[in-house]
Amino acid sequence: MRIEVINTGSELLLGSTLNTHGAWLGQQLMNLGLRVQRLTVVPDGDAIRDALDESLKTSDAVIVTGGLGPTSDDVTREAVAEVLGVELIEDEHALRCVVGFFDRLGKDMTPSNMKQALNPVGADVLPNPHGSAPGVYVPPRLGSSSCAIFLLPGPPHEMHAMYDAEVAPRLKALTDVPEGDGVKMLKFSGVGESRFQDELDTALHGIGGLEVGYCARPGELDLRLIGSEEKRERGGAMAVDAYPEAFINADGRSLEQTVVEALEFGGLTLASAESCTGGMIASRITDVSGSSKVFTHGYVTYADDAKVVMLGVAEDSLGRYGAVSEEVAREMARGALERSGVDIAVSVTGVAGPGGGSADKPVGLVWLGMSVREDGEVKTFAEKRFYPNGRVLFKQLVSQAVLMKVLRYTRERACK
Amino acid sequence: MRIEVINTGSELLLGSTLNTHGAWLGQQLMNLGLRVQRLTVVPDGDAIRDALDESLKTSDAVIVTGGLGPTSDDVTREAVAEVLGVELIEDEHALRCVVGFFDRLGKDMTPSNMKQALNPVGADVLPNPHGSAPGVYVPPRLGSSSCAIFLLPGPPHEMHAMYDAEVAPRLKALTDVPEGDGVKMLKFSGVGESRFQDELDTALHGIGGLEVGYCARPGELDLRLIGSEEKRERGGAMAVDAYPEAFINADGRSLEQTVVEALEFGGLTLASAESCTGGMIASRITDVSGSSKVFTHGYVTYADDAKVVMLGVAEDSLGRYGAVSEEVAREMARGALERSGVDIAVSVTGVAGPGGGSADKPVGLVWLGMSVREDGEVKTFAEKRFYPNGRVLFKQLVSQAVLMKVLRYTRERACK
Repeated sequence: MRIEVINTGSELLLGSTLNTHGAWLGQQLMNLGLRVQRLTVVPDGDAIRDALDESLKTSDAVIVTGGLGPTSDDVTREAVAEVLGVELIEDEHALRCVVGFFDRLGKDMTPSNMKQALNPVGADVLPNPHGSAPGVYVPPRLGSSSCAIFLLPGPPHEMHAMYDAEVAPRLKALTDVPEGDGVKMLKFSGVGESRFQDELDTALHGIGGLEVGYCARPGELDLRLIGSEEKRERGGAMAVDAYPEAFINADGRSLEQTVVEALEFGGLTLASAESCTGGMIASRITDVSGSSKVFTHGYVTYADDAKVVMLGVAEDSLGRYGAVSEEVAREMARGALERSGVDIAVSVTGVAGPGGGSADKPVGLVWLGMSVREDGEVKTFAEKRFYPNGRVLFKQLVSQAVLMKVLRYTRERACK
Repeated sequence: MRIEVINTGSELLLGSTLNTHGAWLGQQLMNLGLRVQRLTVVPDGDAIRDALDESLKTSDAVIVTGGLGPTSDDVTREAVAEVLGVELIEDEHALRCVVGFFDRLGKDMTPSNMKQALNPVGADVLPNPHGSAPGVYVPPRLGSSSCAIFLLPGPPHEMHAMYDAEVAPRLKALTDVPEGDGVKMLKFSGVGESRFQDELDTALHGIGGLEVGYCARPGELDLRLIGSEEKRERGGAMAVDAYPEAFINADGRSLEQTVVEALEFGGLTLASAESCTGGMIASRITDVSGSSKVFTHGYVTYADDAKVVMLGVAEDSLGRYGAVSEEVAREMARGALERSGVDIAVSVTGVAGPGGGSADKPVGLVWLGMSVREDGEVKTFAEKRFYPNGRVLFKQLVSQAVLMKVLRYTRERACK
């Protein structure tokens, strides 16, 4: 099956916005065993017509994102109707979707939103629970085309939800993916792509008939195995055996979700005491639905004074060792544990940069602390790490390292 | 001048790599007053031929990235020669470039690198100081085409350097860009795309010769104005006058950066007391370099008990009104202000969902509190909002609303 993607949006061509839709759709289609053969980006407005015209000639399915909004440069619906040679009419189902969306928000629909209720005759309306723009599905052999067409809204959360609910099942039905061939994605943290390449790649390729791919993200590596179930499982086991400490999961859940579930499984509660990550650890954990069962207290002690008042860190320790030190990391973790009454408290104190570094304590240095309650006894540890990667990436990598520590500790404790 | 970009690389279509080349080139060309009219991504290998063929038909210039390497799926040079109908020969200048690169590294050239010394007859060689692959410039009216073609290497640092040194000057010479045409981007929050369309779009288009575009993100809207400086400024002023409360900035900085700078300008400090946003407000603020000057204390009081112990919220208020209430939002803000000693404290308490909602307090309900110190006197406010958009988006929208409140308050206070 030949699939093409068309992304509309002038901002994607002006350099002000990275095209994340292309990569996201590529990954989702890969999960179905499908591959994008061409991706085209065109500005808002009329250019979508020519791009559609070309893609319809050579493809079995085309996915278009964007141009379904209420403004005058949103013309994707019109372009599809024109290229197919079918009429565009006000659709009752589409209208209910638009009206329903504004009802749920308790807001009034504006006249320009009426345009979003238009649909090419014979096409299906795809509901959009997260926005005003319904999507469109044109089945193959409608009008002048033999190509399936999906029109999805531009905002990422709307597009993702609609793809999952409406596009993936239809594509599955349209395609004939080889039985049993599928993709397995394993998530690791703390082991790099080149180590995989040097230490494990040959063995994985030795399985034969297994396609091996990697995707590196900040502090995370996806290992992608494509092949029969038996081969995927064999390759996956090989990778987990090689790096058990680095393994997150094999089911696509986020690290934070994996942590929350491990804590809940172990009946444990968590608190965080953050300096340089500024609340990112707490925020990542509370992204997970149900996290309130395991996460209760978060201390964002950015100023020295906050460390003293909120966590009981000794002024003497701050003066003698400085805020970025093993001693302060330990006192932060211990203070958070005692003041909150949880089972596990983590702490971070470091130099995020770009300012504030010194020869002794350079930008990127961070101390990670952990204090735990085991059989009524409190144990406190700390370790040093170094992430000289710029402020935002530093926060991401440090929060990743802390979540991995919690995951490993929780798993080990469950095995005791 | 009609310009197209073609990016080759299978990784860009499998979802493992974001296409940053497209955005980077878009921005560079914009700086020359030029726009990318279409961007096409194709996998490694033969697909480049068809893409080139199509782009040459309609464009004045085509920029291709990738496919100049030494491996068998690097076929961009071959494709260009074939499409133009000219011969590909070993070029002395190109060979000197390749050999010189390996000399500088003190490494031996491998036989497969010989391929990189091939060049279409009549095309210029573009030196590559950072890699083994020389670039190619095909001037207009060579072979069967009247289009200028640039072939650039895929690695970003090689591509960027070659663009700056070789491509930009040639494009400037080829084009005749109207003096002073440029882009202005204004950021708003709290006013939707459809309101702009209904209330302001006609007036903006009335300026004439001004291109108007929108890009909506969760809780944020970019207004893009392209035209002469005078027209851009006139349109921008019109939009800011229409929605002064919603205006963030006109220079592309993030909302959090704008907030930090406004606080610093006003000599004010900030603390946060977060329940449902779980630290996201603190984390967004501390993404900004230098935020430690204005942000000192963050309280993530996810559990009721944390609200009592960390912020001094009355147990009686929690029992009588519930955690999600005006009273608790006020006590949280006031507690944070008093315990931290800052000038402004913000608080949020709400139902992020998916669980925890009731008829009285549905998922999406949130109370935003603010407590400020003005001339030694403490004033505390709270207001209700409703974002029934799912957990992660809820956090984003609530943190956006809180940051906007801080920005407005800080700006108003500066005007007093």
